[in-house]
Amino acid sequence: MADDADDAYEEPLFQRVIEYAAAADRDIVRMVSGHPDWDPPAALREGLRAYADGDPETFQYPPREGLPALRGEIADRRGVEESQVIVTNGAAEANYLGMAEALDRDSGAEVLVTDPVYPYYPGRTTMLGGETTRVSVGDNGHVDVDAMRAAASGDTAAIVLNTPNNPTGAVYSLEAVAELADVAADVDALLVVDEVYDHFDFSGRFESAVTLDRDNVVVTTSFSKALGITGFRVGYAVFPADLVEAALTRHTLVNIAASRPAQAAVLAALEETPPAYYESVRDTIRGRIDDFTAALDAAGAAYTTPEGAFYVLVRFEGFPGTLANVQRLIDDTGVAAMPGAAFGETYDGWIRFSLCTDRVDEAADRLAAYFDGR
Amino acid sequence: MADDADDAYEEPLFQRVIEYAAAADRDIVRMVSGHPDWDPPAALREGLRAYADGDPETFQYPPREGLPALRGEIADRRGVEESQVIVTNGAAEANYLGMAEALDRDSGAEVLVTDPVYPYYPGRTTMLGGETTRVSVGDNGHVDVDAMRAAASGDTAAIVLNTPNNPTGAVYSLEAVAELADVAADVDALLVVDEVYDHFDFSGRFESAVTLDRDNVVVTTSFSKALGITGFRVGYAVFPADLVEAALTRHTLVNIAASRPAQAAVLAALEETPPAYYESVRDTIRGRIDDFTAALDAAGAAYTTPEGAFYVLVRFEGFPGTLANVQRLIDDTGVAAMPGAAFGETYDGWIRFSLCTDRVDEAADRLAAYFDGR
Repeated sequence: MADDADDAYEEPLFQRVIEYAAAADRDIVRMVSGHPDWDPPAALREGLRAYADGDPETFQYPPREGLPALRGEIADRRGVEESQVIVTNGAAEANYLGMAEALDRDSGAEVLVTDPVYPYYPGRTTMLGGETTRVSVGDNGHVDVDAMRAAASGDTAAIVLNTPNNPTGAVYSLEAVAELADVAADVDALLVVDEVYDHFDFSGRFESAVTLDRDNVVVTTSFSKALGITGFRVGYAVFPADLVEAALTRHTLVNIAASRPAQAAVLAALEETPPAYYESVRDTIRGRIDDFTAALDAAGAAYTTPEGAFYVLVRFEGFPGTLANVQRLIDDTGVAAMPGAAFGETYDGWIRFSLCTDRVDEAADRLAAYFDGR
Repeated sequence: MADDADDAYEEPLFQRVIEYAAAADRDIVRMVSGHPDWDPPAALREGLRAYADGDPETFQYPPREGLPALRGEIADRRGVEESQVIVTNGAAEANYLGMAEALDRDSGAEVLVTDPVYPYYPGRTTMLGGETTRVSVGDNGHVDVDAMRAAASGDTAAIVLNTPNNPTGAVYSLEAVAELADVAADVDALLVVDEVYDHFDFSGRFESAVTLDRDNVVVTTSFSKALGITGFRVGYAVFPADLVEAALTRHTLVNIAASRPAQAAVLAALEETPPAYYESVRDTIRGRIDDFTAALDAAGAAYTTPEGAFYVLVRFEGFPGTLANVQRLIDDTGVAAMPGAAFGETYDGWIRFSLCTDRVDEAADRLAAYFDGR
């Protein structure tokens, strides 16, 4: 466990790696970012075209909580009340609304997160005037429930989880999430669960925290990864009934509403896209996991096998996950990835590779050759 | 001048009027909201269609500060550095970023606004932990510079202006805005200028505060009104060079970026739309102002003649601008408008009519008949 009052967030380091790779004088296999490289569903494109032909009225403010049909579709699929759903500018805003509400309740100023952690959670905590406490994960990158329980106190305002997890690939059991909802409830805190990789479960174990139906659990997600549209900025939060109104006020004061053409396109995609689309994308990622890890086996590197999401953490002996080493890899192998140190201390010896490229074999071969020759 | 610690924001009252009008059992002329009823430019629709056909890569995160071509186009048009521009989720987010930065600078907790005022500014102030002080406007709804100077103190973090003004229709002189930049500078505060109605100047006097090039002035606006697309949520802020980075961090942590299809469509509209489009929309509003106020003259009502924006404040003798009276107007005349009391005390005897309908003649006739018969 480590306190870190000076928590920054991912972007600068992220940006520096991307810029370094862009400036490199060689061909680069890009494995830094979680930007899908697959096609969005045809119905999404069609929905956008149909929207472009609409009446001027359809170009004006949607209801601040989201287009009624989209909100209804989300509520139906998730088995929640439509009134609990706020359509947001991506999962980023949804998570921000959940965290802001937790810190606004005069019930503490501390946010508990795992280590490693997606750096935006500590970044948001700092922005909102709170303090982050990081709790190291346990085996296989899973949240350590007992350590979280030991860390929770009267000053805890929120526990923020991400499952399926970036960067460890762990898919938490619903039992673990339920236990953490109890831990949070015991100290009058909210549990905020970011499920942005909910469509990327390879374990068969993922169950959304919305099924817990607790009055202190906020669930956030987006269509960015599921539909391959990180640029559309359409996500949503499911709030407990008593917490919706305050979140909706904040959402309105910050953004008024999420962008309407993007909402309309997502609605069309949800209505018309067959399950085969999602399955095919999952199959693609599954194949990349197999190919990449098989090549890493051959290279003798240690790695995490993701149960979900689309990242692999790799540890090369004597080559820790620093920015300098990641830059060295770009120069010497033409493979760009994220330093594990960007996510905290627990995996700072590791490097995170995103599988959003169809060149994972080539990347693994280059890495194997490089480490074989060292 | 009035302190109001319990400042709410427009939406609930706004929503209540809209819902009341929707539930009314008669034909309603809708003059509540500032939702353009005119067609967006053809190039905007075409831009959206072209975007729908793009590579998967164009569906992913844009740069957090905005699409480079859009940011460049904005910088060129406004005569500022591209690095000063942050493309936001509408003017709402832009204004939120400016106000948040002012309150984050440890230079006071008070926000000075005019009275009447667009209710989101006090709402944002409360959300951000600040206190609002309202300063009554002077003649013709113009900001009272001397009263603002008298109100400013070491605790002032920001002065927030809106010009052309909603609801008074005043277009402030650049001299007045420059004086207020000095007032703000004297107490180490920021001046945040919301210019969302910048394309609706009928006075010929409007000059943007970006031309002042001050290191304590943040200018925010959007394409919502100019292009008739309030639902697209594309706006921007122009920050002084020293203040951009902190605003960009907040923007990233809250939203990551503005929605990309909407950004792409706005870019196409900016590149391809001739000046005649903007002129024609202005002519439409100018005609509605003339028609509506002429009919009000005939009815003997007092009103403001807007120098800019697209609202008319009207005072009917013995009929103050309360929610109850606005509901009575809906029932008895079928004209829906906003209570002046929603904007503060100074014009709480008045009612605000939005000119975003082609039925202003009919509305004025109904009002004239009603007040003639009372």
